[in-house]
Amino acid sequence: MEKIKILLDTMGYENDLEHVIKAAKDFYYQHEDDLEIILVGNEQLIKPLLDNDWRLFPIVHTEVSIEQNDTILSARKKQNSSMHLALRYLKDKQADGMLTAGNSAVFVYNAYATIGLLEHIKKPAFMPFVPTIDGGVTNLLDVGASIDVDGTDLFNFAIMANTIAKMRTPNPRVGVLNIGTEDHKGLPYHQEANELLKTSNLNYVGFVEPKTILEREVDVLVADGFSGNIALKTMEGVGKTISNFLKNEYKKPKNLFAALLSKPIFKKIKKAFDYKEHAGAFVLGLDGILVKTHGSADYQQFMSALKILYETIKADVLNEIKKDLNNYYGQ
Amino acid sequence: MEKIKILLDTMGYENDLEHVIKAAKDFYYQHEDDLEIILVGNEQLIKPLLDNDWRLFPIVHTEVSIEQNDTILSARKKQNSSMHLALRYLKDKQADGMLTAGNSAVFVYNAYATIGLLEHIKKPAFMPFVPTIDGGVTNLLDVGASIDVDGTDLFNFAIMANTIAKMRTPNPRVGVLNIGTEDHKGLPYHQEANELLKTSNLNYVGFVEPKTILEREVDVLVADGFSGNIALKTMEGVGKTISNFLKNEYKKPKNLFAALLSKPIFKKIKKAFDYKEHAGAFVLGLDGILVKTHGSADYQQFMSALKILYETIKADVLNEIKKDLNNYYGQ
Repeated sequence: MEKIKILLDTMGYENDLEHVIKAAKDFYYQHEDDLEIILVGNEQLIKPLLDNDWRLFPIVHTEVSIEQNDTILSARKKQNSSMHLALRYLKDKQADGMLTAGNSAVFVYNAYATIGLLEHIKKPAFMPFVPTIDGGVTNLLDVGASIDVDGTDLFNFAIMANTIAKMRTPNPRVGVLNIGTEDHKGLPYHQEANELLKTSNLNYVGFVEPKTILEREVDVLVADGFSGNIALKTMEGVGKTISNFLKNEYKKPKNLFAALLSKPIFKKIKKAFDYKEHAGAFVLGLDGILVKTHGSADYQQFMSALKILYETIKADVLNEIKKDLNNYYGQ
Repeated sequence: MEKIKILLDTMGYENDLEHVIKAAKDFYYQHEDDLEIILVGNEQLIKPLLDNDWRLFPIVHTEVSIEQNDTILSARKKQNSSMHLALRYLKDKQADGMLTAGNSAVFVYNAYATIGLLEHIKKPAFMPFVPTIDGGVTNLLDVGASIDVDGTDLFNFAIMANTIAKMRTPNPRVGVLNIGTEDHKGLPYHQEANELLKTSNLNYVGFVEPKTILEREVDVLVADGFSGNIALKTMEGVGKTISNFLKNEYKKPKNLFAALLSKPIFKKIKKAFDYKEHAGAFVLGLDGILVKTHGSADYQQFMSALKILYETIKADVLNEIKKDLNNYYGQ
């Protein structure tokens, strides 16, 4: 059996290198029968952290990294960065997928430029897993890769995300993010997408308002990259503001007992919304499986993102996406 | 001194008529020196609720009301509805402003169609007060009146909202909602608005990401009606989901003591986010002061919305807006 090959970009994120290397080792040992992890980064720094395991991990060496404050423009001068190298190796079919914790904007742009779009696809989409109150997840896309879209783009986003969501639920409910549920709501591209989705064989529920965004009314929620990003960051912002407020209050001495007694409740809500368990976002629409994790990822988040990448490759999702697209458009 | 005249649409909201009538009476008695409230609705139902005060309130009688499930189309057949009548009276300068709790979409459309736009303004904007964690408010606009805008529209929204925000703070900070803070972020109309605002004399802070939306980073946050609506409903949705979750947990018998001890904390957060204290949204850009309160408004919300309307008229804000627009565009 051919092993699953994963390119792991070890550079350009905020935490120490230990996190990604320890995750690579642990994840490798969980799947050593059928997995190879190719580390991309500074060999001199990586090898000591691998100890005796260094023979198990091919290393693509570079000392150049894309930083979180790089821009698409400044990154052009770093063609030998770990991110660029990983993308070129993926393009050359040296691996089945890649994971990076590097700069999102630079990654999405260079992934698009290097890997290229799938047939029938005109725009890439960036798709995280949004944790919902019931402990599940919703795939929200696009959250920033393509801010200028038409109805067909949204329709294509739905097809691709549906293929991914099928990995966890048999008949994913698909919705389009809109400011109301009636057919005439939104911009022309919402109405176009609505018509295309209604006549598709997806389990399409129609327009979805963001009021229920954490209730998992749908498994796939499709949006243009601008409003998808606004919705995502608003969720994160509101969650953060409320949780900071509660933390501040509960750490006051007078609230000590309230805090102690409330602990199980906050553990429960934290668990439901634990993004560390779904710490990977896909760049969809490209001819490869590409996963991005947080710029501040730690060991646990790398483990989670590796799992997402590994399982997606194992389920042959890229070919499933191609098949599903061909079902709509013909080969 | 000429009295301030307010048209109060008493129909088409979900609560009993008692709420709006009691608010009208109480608010009137707080300001009887300089206030007249004209009630628009069913005289036979209103009069008994006014008791001995019925002589104090002129009533514009109608039995036709716009319902929450009416559409712009279905509302066309209700030209004698309380909402239509109030708008026509306002158009004819029979009053200085109006308040309704009726159907938002129908109200915004008919306000625009009946009252007409201010000079220099091409699109109306719907603008609520968003409560922030510090107990303050941010004006977010547009949240759904105009989903197709250009840079000048956003600029005009900023000028008008700034005039309103000046009522509560001397030098309002103004921002444009965007998916990033760098100048190149967003769609062309964001960049146009950014340039116009930079060279204006508004206290412009630049693009604002929704991550800080409840932190009151700005006093005025400008957006197209689509993403403004998405941001608003996402906030409401996340807040509702989290608060429902906490309510459910704290009412479990095992959490009784945690609930009792946590009460002051939840009172505090509830007070900070109490939208009932800022229960009015403006329709801006029209030649009149128009305020909308919630379709499920109660006595307290009508009182709050009446206060917003009254104070805005008293501060001569419509003329201030006209002046501020003329400062930019010349007369």
